[in-house]
Amino acid sequence: MSVEQLAVAEIVRRQAERGKVASRETALLSTEQKNAALRAMADALRAQADAILAANAEDMRRAREAGMASHLLDRLALTPKRLDDMAMMVEAVAALPDPVGEVIARDTRPNGLRVERVRVPMGLIAVVFEARPNVTSDVAALCLKSGNAVLLRGGSDAYQSSRAIVAALRDAIAPYVNPDAIQLVETTDRQGVLALLTLNGLIDLAIPRGGADLINTVVRTATVPTIETGVGNCHVYVERSADPEMALAIVLNAKCSRPSVCNAAETLLIDRAIAPTLLPKLGAALRERGVELRVDPTAREILGYGIPATEADWATEYLDLILAVRVVDGLDEALAHIARYGSLHSEAIVTQDAAQAERFLNEVDAAAVYWNASTRFTDGYEMGLGAEIGISTQKVHARGPMGLRELCTYKWVIRGDGQVR
Amino acid sequence: MSVEQLAVAEIVRRQAERGKVASRETALLSTEQKNAALRAMADALRAQADAILAANAEDMRRAREAGMASHLLDRLALTPKRLDDMAMMVEAVAALPDPVGEVIARDTRPNGLRVERVRVPMGLIAVVFEARPNVTSDVAALCLKSGNAVLLRGGSDAYQSSRAIVAALRDAIAPYVNPDAIQLVETTDRQGVLALLTLNGLIDLAIPRGGADLINTVVRTATVPTIETGVGNCHVYVERSADPEMALAIVLNAKCSRPSVCNAAETLLIDRAIAPTLLPKLGAALRERGVELRVDPTAREILGYGIPATEADWATEYLDLILAVRVVDGLDEALAHIARYGSLHSEAIVTQDAAQAERFLNEVDAAAVYWNASTRFTDGYEMGLGAEIGISTQKVHARGPMGLRELCTYKWVIRGDGQVR
Repeated sequence: MSVEQLAVAEIVRRQAERGKVASRETALLSTEQKNAALRAMADALRAQADAILAANAEDMRRAREAGMASHLLDRLALTPKRLDDMAMMVEAVAALPDPVGEVIARDTRPNGLRVERVRVPMGLIAVVFEARPNVTSDVAALCLKSGNAVLLRGGSDAYQSSRAIVAALRDAIAPYVNPDAIQLVETTDRQGVLALLTLNGLIDLAIPRGGADLINTVVRTATVPTIETGVGNCHVYVERSADPEMALAIVLNAKCSRPSVCNAAETLLIDRAIAPTLLPKLGAALRERGVELRVDPTAREILGYGIPATEADWATEYLDLILAVRVVDGLDEALAHIARYGSLHSEAIVTQDAAQAERFLNEVDAAAVYWNASTRFTDGYEMGLGAEIGISTQKVHARGPMGLRELCTYKWVIRGDGQVR
Repeated sequence: MSVEQLAVAEIVRRQAERGKVASRETALLSTEQKNAALRAMADALRAQADAILAANAEDMRRAREAGMASHLLDRLALTPKRLDDMAMMVEAVAALPDPVGEVIARDTRPNGLRVERVRVPMGLIAVVFEARPNVTSDVAALCLKSGNAVLLRGGSDAYQSSRAIVAALRDAIAPYVNPDAIQLVETTDRQGVLALLTLNGLIDLAIPRGGADLINTVVRTATVPTIETGVGNCHVYVERSADPEMALAIVLNAKCSRPSVCNAAETLLIDRAIAPTLLPKLGAALRERGVELRVDPTAREILGYGIPATEADWATEYLDLILAVRVVDGLDEALAHIARYGSLHSEAIVTQDAAQAERFLNEVDAAAVYWNASTRFTDGYEMGLGAEIGISTQKVHARGPMGLRELCTYKWVIRGDGQVR
């Protein structure tokens, strides 16, 4: 390592050490203390709006000068309305039940030992994200409510905004807990991410929030435990017995309601038996909404239009108004396609045949499997978690939407009267 | 990569691909099919005892020629009795409840969506272990019962033994499921471990079973999800109000009943208020059992003997009849010592004071915290899991003893009637 890299690593290590110390305090806070701190955080976002908006204007100016694309500029921009939404999100987290201290299991062993598994905070969580200022306060609120300290590493394009937000949040929580419970990594050097992700013993969990590149970097680089989030190459399979109106509604919703998110559908699989009658209707409705179709030869023959799909299309998360379309010979071919190209996120079948549906639900390996509903429901709010820190596409620890409980671990608490083995 | 490394990586990848295919079958097996396969595995270990013992004799011969230490030779050695114990362990796993298919949570959302979280297998699990032939069948049984396929990578010194065991197990399960559900990595090249641990998308979870070096290698090298297991620098804190007889029994049990295991105590922390009267009794009893004491200056003053402890002693997992001893000024100093040197495994307080005990249970960050009981109970059987694949010392996914449930993940199963968002 160069002297500069060493300096960056040392900055991050010291912050993590301070965060670890703070995590011992956050773990012991009462629900009332945490909620009071969260309400103070929301108040601070509103009270310090001028400073935060000024910092964001500075980020925006630099980003424009650097030629940032307009959709990224939009993600980066804060407005009084967006800042108020962020404050409301923090208040919403305060209103959620406290996951800490919940007894998950209880047992008295034959030798009289009283064994409990009790939900407790993780400790210090690192969250690596892109240039979205709102993530700063969302993540800080979720981590604090779950009794954790957090070390945030946001996109460097949003650094001034994140710094102003974190400064407001730290001021707000200081009367309740060590402010190092919420820290922003104090360097935008890329080496800082590497340093963060290899602090075994200090960082208990690292979560990437962002696109495929960010997630891959975190998963490949980290030696601390991580949770792979977010990439969604989701399919809707329309089986021959599907209700045509329902199929139309679900396909349109899964593709068009918000194409830029991970639970949007990217591929339509349609049963050969129903394709000649249903596919033209689906195609027309999709085209009407501006969806570009990438089709296999059979679909192309039925539709008479569509860009021929390549192998890459089946594997692509478009995050855009593009849909790959493939005609399949029934359930087995649909299952094989999903097993090959799916990203273990969300998969749906539309059918009136319960046996086909149950096979699909049972055999598809994904975080969420749907029968007669849109893939768009894979979301913490929709699933009843109240809020989410991300959607896990791995199988370890948590799968699908992760809420406050998923930011916790548990410990075995054993009370005895002198038992030995 | 060199041509040889590439060849090794390719061997491992192909095995993992076959394992992944087999995992789709194991996930769908009924409890009866799995139990029948497990009973066949136990029968095969007994029926093919001659071949397995002959293979083990070959490993033993080579190990002796290579000058392997006697305690390692003992670990490597199989006997008819040990082989029968392995078969009985497989039968015990067959008798455990099936974790797959259990509905963990159930909810109907306001929009009518019926949401379940259902326990399902991980998929393909890689287990990396040392030259202990019994681990081969233990791990294979636990993985199969939990609906997973397994790719085993044992210590090269036990390769012939493991190969013979895996051959017997694969023959046994063939009538029930694709035999690639149980595979041994077909190369002893160390590059094989690296190849295995970076097969993202094929390996769903990697578990190291062994000593600190093995665990560190796996955790540092893997890009697939791993679970850190096993290192235990465990403490017993004897508080001033402790019952002296109970303290004596717990300290002796925690240190001496099986010093080579991870839940054995490595450091005794004793309250200054009770040290002058109790420590001499503890010291005498420990010395009588051949325990070497590494003591801080105050303990040395009280005892009149003991090797002065160095900083390294506080951080060392001796796994031997050695105990570090430190006199502390009450609970806060004990908590600070454990926070600094503990390995998040098992920590005990001996006290008659419930308030002190509850603070200890609440504030110590470890997989298992004990009040008036020996640390030796951190074990899958003792905690009621029936069997264990290892003891997690990380916080993600599972903490402490991991049984069949901890070899599973869950999926969200959503049934609707056309809901869109």
